[in-house]
Amino acid sequence: MTVVKWNVRAGAYYDSVVLMQLQRGLLGLPGVVDAGVVMATQANRELLAANSLLPEAITANPDDLLIVIKANSEEFATEAIGKVDELLTRKKSAALSQDFHPRSLSAAVKQLPEANWVLISVPGRYAAGVAREALDLGKHVFLYSDNVSLEDEIALKKTAREKGLLVMGPDCGTAIINGIGLGFANRVRRGSIGVVGASGTGTQAVTAQIHNLGGGISHAIGTGGRDLKSDVGAITAHQALDVLARDPDTKVIALISKPPSPDVATQLISTAMETGKPVVIYFIGYPPPARKIGNLQFAVSLSEAAEIAVNSNWELVSDNQFPITNYYVRGLFSGGTLAYETLIGLQASLSPIYSNAPITNYQLLEDTLHSRAHTIIDLGDEFFMVGRLHPMIDNDLRIRRMKQEADDPEVGTILFDVVLGEGSHLDPAGELVSVIKEIREKRIGELEIVAIVIGTDDDPQNLQSQVSQLQEAGVTVFRTATEAVEYISLRMGSHKPIQFPPVNLEQLKQPLAAVNVGLESFYDSLISQGAQAVHVEWRPPAGGNERMAALLAKMRK
Amino acid sequence: MTVVKWNVRAGAYYDSVVLMQLQRGLLGLPGVVDAGVVMATQANRELLAANSLLPEAITANPDDLLIVIKANSEEFATEAIGKVDELLTRKKSAALSQDFHPRSLSAAVKQLPEANWVLISVPGRYAAGVAREALDLGKHVFLYSDNVSLEDEIALKKTAREKGLLVMGPDCGTAIINGIGLGFANRVRRGSIGVVGASGTGTQAVTAQIHNLGGGISHAIGTGGRDLKSDVGAITAHQALDVLARDPDTKVIALISKPPSPDVATQLISTAMETGKPVVIYFIGYPPPARKIGNLQFAVSLSEAAEIAVNSNWELVSDNQFPITNYYVRGLFSGGTLAYETLIGLQASLSPIYSNAPITNYQLLEDTLHSRAHTIIDLGDEFFMVGRLHPMIDNDLRIRRMKQEADDPEVGTILFDVVLGEGSHLDPAGELVSVIKEIREKRIGELEIVAIVIGTDDDPQNLQSQVSQLQEAGVTVFRTATEAVEYISLRMGSHKPIQFPPVNLEQLKQPLAAVNVGLESFYDSLISQGAQAVHVEWRPPAGGNERMAALLAKMRK
Repeated sequence: MTVVKWNVRAGAYYDSVVLMQLQRGLLGLPGVVDAGVVMATQANRELLAANSLLPEAITANPDDLLIVIKANSEEFATEAIGKVDELLTRKKSAALSQDFHPRSLSAAVKQLPEANWVLISVPGRYAAGVAREALDLGKHVFLYSDNVSLEDEIALKKTAREKGLLVMGPDCGTAIINGIGLGFANRVRRGSIGVVGASGTGTQAVTAQIHNLGGGISHAIGTGGRDLKSDVGAITAHQALDVLARDPDTKVIALISKPPSPDVATQLISTAMETGKPVVIYFIGYPPPARKIGNLQFAVSLSEAAEIAVNSNWELVSDNQFPITNYYVRGLFSGGTLAYETLIGLQASLSPIYSNAPITNYQLLEDTLHSRAHTIIDLGDEFFMVGRLHPMIDNDLRIRRMKQEADDPEVGTILFDVVLGEGSHLDPAGELVSVIKEIREKRIGELEIVAIVIGTDDDPQNLQSQVSQLQEAGVTVFRTATEAVEYISLRMGSHKPIQFPPVNLEQLKQPLAAVNVGLESFYDSLISQGAQAVHVEWRPPAGGNERMAALLAKMRK
Repeated sequence: MTVVKWNVRAGAYYDSVVLMQLQRGLLGLPGVVDAGVVMATQANRELLAANSLLPEAITANPDDLLIVIKANSEEFATEAIGKVDELLTRKKSAALSQDFHPRSLSAAVKQLPEANWVLISVPGRYAAGVAREALDLGKHVFLYSDNVSLEDEIALKKTAREKGLLVMGPDCGTAIINGIGLGFANRVRRGSIGVVGASGTGTQAVTAQIHNLGGGISHAIGTGGRDLKSDVGAITAHQALDVLARDPDTKVIALISKPPSPDVATQLISTAMETGKPVVIYFIGYPPPARKIGNLQFAVSLSEAAEIAVNSNWELVSDNQFPITNYYVRGLFSGGTLAYETLIGLQASLSPIYSNAPITNYQLLEDTLHSRAHTIIDLGDEFFMVGRLHPMIDNDLRIRRMKQEADDPEVGTILFDVVLGEGSHLDPAGELVSVIKEIREKRIGELEIVAIVIGTDDDPQNLQSQVSQLQEAGVTVFRTATEAVEYISLRMGSHKPIQFPPVNLEQLKQPLAAVNVGLESFYDSLISQGAQAVHVEWRPPAGGNERMAALLAKMRK
């Protein structure tokens, strides 16, 4: 028969290392079967309950500390509870016996003025405040803390961007700057591969694998998981791509992230193209638009991303080979699957894009008969098919729609497929070229026509003559959807000038010096890697008492 | 100034070739500027309106024929309307002047008893009836028609499966059986690559590209786009994979489809594994679970699928190398991205699978603290993180959860990651092996433990010692998520016996003979390819008058 006893400490701050050590200390006491030492959040209470460590009688607020002991007897439990203060003090005196640490970020910066980096791993609710202070001091921020609000993230990153500073995070697990790992980071060879990683273990897996394959890392810049969502707009990822593009020691870039928001993906891909360096992209769980688009290659796993980066000897398309356009693309397909594959390919670089056969709901073209922005239409969709021959036989619908699209002055590219073979129209090119000539003449120099011709040299239509008829009418012809997607994607780069102060490349190249605020183990790790570092003996305002902290903040104004 | 005139013909059936020819005939008449000849569905009325061919005064029902003429004058318009009957008759007499065609499927089958295949391209609302008749006659069905209800599709496919017959479609554009293209099909070399295609142009693009790359096709079996949805359960795709597996002339199989429903994907992948042949899978727009899982390779484009199929000289994993289990997999990750990548990999072969960091909403694990079926937990999620150290430093949470999972008798595999490097726990394996030994002893022979170790030989933890400690405790260790995913996927094959009569392989290998019901051009194409074929001069029951048809059907009962 076991006994459970507990202790609630209201509104006091303890860092998580102290809590872990207290729990371990309690578990080592005689007669103690199990122990829980947690902040009393809903999640943590559920965790205690799952371990039979949450008696119903306990009441506590989320910012209270909850200490629960399960012991073999009433006496053992009482004794253990009685030791809590002693165990907490033991930890504190151990810390005190070590070197002197400044108590504030500003004091630390005075102690190590060459520190360009501030690592922050304090609890989420305090983290934004510390980060703001670091930016005010002109420092780059590595923000390990999670539970930071989206609003704070956006504000911090906008401030940082104006100053040419990086905010890596919040919830950024990993970075490697000039050979020194920040947060969780594998020890890897220095080398020519730069990494931009929205996630921690993604960056670890890729950098470790690059090392294991014989490659090396110039810098690995973390962004935090939310950076690539629309609200944040990948501010850090854009800065990171830009600084790695300017870094002569970075020959190849790997960009690793969960799938970005569609608009963000478009901009990032455009920025990645503009780096002019080989960029390996792995948007985890996102269907790759192609294996290759110009200087971009798309991987389908973390280990493949590493392999491609290490073996990146692919030929780069030279700049300015493609006339850049910001006009819209309209695809008019007879083949549903070709339309679908093209949409998958183009959605990465064209945004917004709509379709009557969308991949995601937000792409749905509400009015099938009128295109918007970039649009891919499947003319073989059931909607069109009642009492009508398939568009592979009857081109009437497509010819009408081609004229309609060409009349839209915002349209710069009309894309269509010609599917040859048994059962299809016997001369589709012949029927289409007259309208193509007509619309090209109407909008000379403004309208490009691109075709995907699917067929074989044995097809009844004469493949070669179909292709030549189209080419003679001025159509750019490809034989697979993949090639057409690459061609169009390369033409659609936005090539916007960067409007913000660039991140100072020289600061990345100096011997790393940093101030650490939060987990002391991150400081230890900086020192063991040979970096210069100062640890701040951080305590929350008013010792974690939020009411008191609010009062203090008010008084300061 | 143009004039628009129109004519409505109620409830009469015309096939779509006749309608196209009538429209073209009208367009050729003097003074006619434009003409529309359509069944008066909502979609078609909108199309007319978009071409300024729908005066407000027109009233018509969806099964009425609508003829609209825009001419340069009242007289031209009236004259054109007056020619409609003549133009319709001209087409009919042209048809009549040709060979005699039987009027019913049963008559056609008597005329060509060796026909094992029936091609159906009549309007959707009649198509299921014709298909049912074909199945009753013991024939395989190629069902080109769209606008067939899901209920009809399911019923037809279940009936067919009981008889060992294929129903390709509805909305099946393409098949190639024994060298003969059905519907829309490119002329391609015969060869050793079998194709299973849920889509028409997908199959065309892949078969054409295989030919263009020098390869050839044994059979290409269509399924229709809805086959791979849960409701249909990929009945046709399973039959197709099975018959191609049994075909000694098929050395490699390519499976092309839009993303299947998750449960269907799992079963299909299991069936594909069981073929024992190299299978190239391209689920268009679905993130590939890996490049390779045993005998399966995953492509990321139609053209890549063709390339892999043609160059398929990859080594096959021999059968029975992996003990097959139907127990559940539980993944307990410290790395969020590793959890995510593993989930993407496993979702293809494990179903249902849940997570606190799901890829799609239906995967959301509602109660983070209790796993269901297959489950992947990110223990570094914010939920767990308030006042607690990251699981890369503190293993307490993971150790507790490991015990919890091991206590579930339905669990057969526990998977976890060990992420080494700066900042992480200095001996994670050392801390985990004692609990691993304990849970393995509790469930001897029932529980496999799999670990993904991310790290380098320079990491402070000593990579080699971490790996050996785990291996000595009986853990199967991999160095990338990809390898762990492949290992687990291969162990999870369901290996269910096929419970239905197999499709008769010999019928696929006989010279193709077919009955065509619907588009005459499909008949012409069969003949031109050297196949034996009979065309049915099909008319809907009661000439397309639905009320009358319903009465007739009642009287027959």
